[in-house]
Amino acid sequence: MNTSGKLFINNRRLWSWMRASVLSIGAFSIGVYYERKCHLYADVVAPGPTTTTTTLNIGTHGDDVIDSPKPSLHGSGSSNNHMAQISRFGFPSMDSLRSYRNFLLSYDRRNRIANWVLEYVTNDDLNADDYNRKGIEFREDQSFHRYFRSTNQDYKGSGYDRGHLAAAGNYRNNPEHIKETYVLSNIAPQIGRGFNRDKWNDLEKYCRRKIRELKSSSGLWICTGPLYLPQKDAVSGKKFIHYEVIGHNHVSVPTHFFKVLLYPGHNGQWFMECFLMPNQIINDKTSIHSYRVDPEIIERSAGILLFNQIPRHQLLINP
Amino acid sequence: MNTSGKLFINNRRLWSWMRASVLSIGAFSIGVYYERKCHLYADVVAPGPTTTTTTLNIGTHGDDVIDSPKPSLHGSGSSNNHMAQISRFGFPSMDSLRSYRNFLLSYDRRNRIANWVLEYVTNDDLNADDYNRKGIEFREDQSFHRYFRSTNQDYKGSGYDRGHLAAAGNYRNNPEHIKETYVLSNIAPQIGRGFNRDKWNDLEKYCRRKIRELKSSSGLWICTGPLYLPQKDAVSGKKFIHYEVIGHNHVSVPTHFFKVLLYPGHNGQWFMECFLMPNQIINDKTSIHSYRVDPEIIERSAGILLFNQIPRHQLLINP
Repeated sequence: MNTSGKLFINNRRLWSWMRASVLSIGAFSIGVYYERKCHLYADVVAPGPTTTTTTLNIGTHGDDVIDSPKPSLHGSGSSNNHMAQISRFGFPSMDSLRSYRNFLLSYDRRNRIANWVLEYVTNDDLNADDYNRKGIEFREDQSFHRYFRSTNQDYKGSGYDRGHLAAAGNYRNNPEHIKETYVLSNIAPQIGRGFNRDKWNDLEKYCRRKIRELKSSSGLWICTGPLYLPQKDAVSGKKFIHYEVIGHNHVSVPTHFFKVLLYPGHNGQWFMECFLMPNQIINDKTSIHSYRVDPEIIERSAGILLFNQIPRHQLLINP
Repeated sequence: MNTSGKLFINNRRLWSWMRASVLSIGAFSIGVYYERKCHLYADVVAPGPTTTTTTLNIGTHGDDVIDSPKPSLHGSGSSNNHMAQISRFGFPSMDSLRSYRNFLLSYDRRNRIANWVLEYVTNDDLNADDYNRKGIEFREDQSFHRYFRSTNQDYKGSGYDRGHLAAAGNYRNNPEHIKETYVLSNIAPQIGRGFNRDKWNDLEKYCRRKIRELKSSSGLWICTGPLYLPQKDAVSGKKFIHYEVIGHNHVSVPTHFFKVLLYPGHNGQWFMECFLMPNQIINDKTSIHSYRVDPEIIERSAGILLFNQIPRHQLLINP
């Protein structure tokens, strides 16, 4: 045992150090708060991601801990609270994370679209006297290196819509919040008629109906993302993943999308609904409920864990 | 301005708090060091990833900073130094990072194989009286959730070799270090004859030749990983990514692999060599040098940045 080891076996000193640590970590956070206060809401018109410091453990043992580190988010008071609320039940993963005002986003730099987007939407977000999206332009996410960004040019002439992951319609009470959802890292190539403008839109409307049914004190957590599902070759019996890429930057066109809802019931019960839809023209008469799946299917395919800080047996799934 | 704002405008108090912070953050780190010391080298026989705490900034502005955060790695002294050396010129990315004794690994939970593996290999690592890999078994990486792990069963009957990313032959001076490379997160499905056992093996041997040519005080950095490159459909002109997945866990079979070497020359110059090979049978007569490419091709395709803490113009690329 070396000298520093002996030092800490002395319990009194250890406690003295720990006391000092606890006190001053608090002080440090307040310092950060003070420093950030000046900059945080500076760029309202073209909001980029807010500056966020995350401390995470990597490489520890125990599966659930590793695959969903709980970052401690520091930021302005209100922003911090909102991020804590969004991520209350865990992060699906920690890859290239960006925190916006109303959603958290994990980016897939190889595929040039998000891995997932996580939202927390309340009744307040939906209250609007006049809701207008006209004139809002899609813009590149400048926070990613130009090698990994998607651009409007990539989508041009591709035949695909620029489909929202965090839906613009979820933030109709604040034009700035709507604008924020137009960042291209929150956008994925979607079939337009029959999907983005129809059945997928129905699913987004369904989320808002659920929010309106909730008590005003609560909101709805939504996790949305792309999937690249394999198909079996009839002749060889082998499985292949096959998807298009568009534009100069090779933006991936997902084969499917998922959307998972989490919300509290009226008697302390929690509900989770898991939707998986093909990025195809879907017959208008098909019920969105026929696209509900077991969460494990989404989790395995997307490489993420869904709201995994709630034990799965405590959830009513696809009620 | 609120009350806490006023509090900190008082400069003396601010400095008092900041002094306390700085002091005790140090204390906290030492506490972490003490705590970790007991566990770090506990599992030598079946080494898992060492426990590492990483502090990174996410969502800051400025491309290069965001896409290659420099984590401060804490661990035992020697492990810490080695990790610092491996990552001296930056991390290609920060997704699901694992730190092993001789390599750092970023895992792609969706594809069940690594995004990249980063090594630093010296002449010492290659010195061995008797080098023997017989009897070493491939093992699952228990540090990942079972949904995202590849297993030996996935490879069985697939027709693909379990190909090393960090090569076992780079660590022939220590049987435990060889063993460590047999973790399945360091393995990818590779064509056996004509690739893994031939041309790819030639490339690994080329790396070791380069190491032996270096001054004993220096080593070679190697970044290795899979690629999923698109192909143009002759009829539609559209581009598609198409690759096989094997086993129950759908382990991806990359279309290509890359290996990038970084090493110092004799007069202060740095060299980078970038190889990109198709996961196919390659004619034995083809020179490995015909597979050298511009680093940007690998960076864009893999979604990573290579040794980006050295300004690119200061590197002699593919000399």
